[in-house]
Amino acid sequence: MHHWKLTLAYDGTSFNGWQVQPNLPTIQGTLAAALHRITGETLLPQGSGRTDAGVHALAQVASISLATPIPATNLHYALNRVLPQSIRVLTIESVSEDFHARHSARRKTYEYRIFPRALYPRAIPPTLDRICSPMLAPYVWDCPYPLDFAALENAADYVRGTHDFTSFTAVNPDQTSRDESTSSETPEASFVRTIYHSSWHRSDGLYLYRVTGSGFLHHMVRNLVGTFVEAAARRISADDIPGILAARNRSAAGPTAPARGLFLVEVEYA
Amino acid sequence: MHHWKLTLAYDGTSFNGWQVQPNLPTIQGTLAAALHRITGETLLPQGSGRTDAGVHALAQVASISLATPIPATNLHYALNRVLPQSIRVLTIESVSEDFHARHSARRKTYEYRIFPRALYPRAIPPTLDRICSPMLAPYVWDCPYPLDFAALENAADYVRGTHDFTSFTAVNPDQTSRDESTSSETPEASFVRTIYHSSWHRSDGLYLYRVTGSGFLHHMVRNLVGTFVEAAARRISADDIPGILAARNRSAAGPTAPARGLFLVEVEYA
Repeated sequence: MHHWKLTLAYDGTSFNGWQVQPNLPTIQGTLAAALHRITGETLLPQGSGRTDAGVHALAQVASISLATPIPATNLHYALNRVLPQSIRVLTIESVSEDFHARHSARRKTYEYRIFPRALYPRAIPPTLDRICSPMLAPYVWDCPYPLDFAALENAADYVRGTHDFTSFTAVNPDQTSRDESTSSETPEASFVRTIYHSSWHRSDGLYLYRVTGSGFLHHMVRNLVGTFVEAAARRISADDIPGILAARNRSAAGPTAPARGLFLVEVEYA
Repeated sequence: MHHWKLTLAYDGTSFNGWQVQPNLPTIQGTLAAALHRITGETLLPQGSGRTDAGVHALAQVASISLATPIPATNLHYALNRVLPQSIRVLTIESVSEDFHARHSARRKTYEYRIFPRALYPRAIPPTLDRICSPMLAPYVWDCPYPLDFAALENAADYVRGTHDFTSFTAVNPDQTSRDESTSSETPEASFVRTIYHSSWHRSDGLYLYRVTGSGFLHHMVRNLVGTFVEAAARRISADDIPGILAARNRSAAGPTAPARGLFLVEVEYA
């Protein structure tokens, strides 16, 4: 068998997430179909983690094992010819048998993109809010609340370090169907994760949140962003974040931010 | 009646073009439905011209007449609340009764965006071609041919001025269903148009074609680009363009470039 590490970019808009599902377009299923068409082999690529419906990837990692002896450059070229333009293979590398896209992952980075319609406090009539370009809309949360950027920054500071993220995890998470976590390095029942980097910056009129962690629970990034936005809209205080973490209760945190603003940016391996 | 000029941006990806069609999503139909929902009135907004399925707009112009006495700011706000995010109203202006988005248009500007995978001559294996981001793909032609930028520039120079564009017009154009032209200022049977500006430039790794004219025939911009690309891929010479124009025969020109790369950028009025 030949073992490969694929790095993939995809536009999640028209897919029902990563994981293969009967009669629904998914990234994993589309990739499996392309591999079958090229090699005749039936296999399921293993992703570094599942992404939800509508979530995008700049560099998702998948591992595959093929019996067919096809050179890397030929496989790369063939995949990008067969796959829809909404999925691109960026790189293909030969890896050892013990490489597994999910089990071997050590750190992951996500980016969340907000289009701020207005600043807090809203000094102008809502009719004068900024208008989000239709060409940008599939890739951002066109946020209707006036946002205080400093509050986003302050709120994001509180999640750095090792915490129990129960409050930011989907209630009754269906771990078998959707899960952003790289669950290998932590016991199944643990909601403890380590966040190495958590910060907001501004670029091209967008508010961008970058978060790097040991792993992420289902909806964790979107629930963090939804809660940070509650602070930025002044419905809670940024200083409430430690109490929300301590509550270990999903209802203590804010709503789930829309999928369309979320990008899986990088998966790092040992 | 109150007469309004609307400036619209839209992502054409998921629409069957501008013109209303039964049981198909169109820009005109979606806008009419939004106006009906807001005012209760049934009317068909008049566009500056039709855009084909998959063609985008940064500033399409539409004219409407409403009996409802609704302030501009309220109408603007309500439309952007009711419309899908793939259509945005950028501005609303009160106009006189004799303003008509199509009849009053004097000049139009289109932009065509190409993602060049490789330069001509292709010096590297095709497996090393640039890879088009899935997030960019709906808005460019991910062109598989190696392109000579200088040939694009030279070819574009030849169409400036007043010419008969029969060679660049869809064969048997169904003028009633799809038409990029502002047909008012020229006799119906004429394929003569004046091009004021026609040039390529490079930006952010893309090749961008800007063309401003008195009006455009059905598929004209996409046929021009498809022919320029034939020159850039060295299948014809840029110097063949005058002969192609003189032939007044669609089969003399190149293929129609994909819709997804085309943007209606501006409509100018007297």
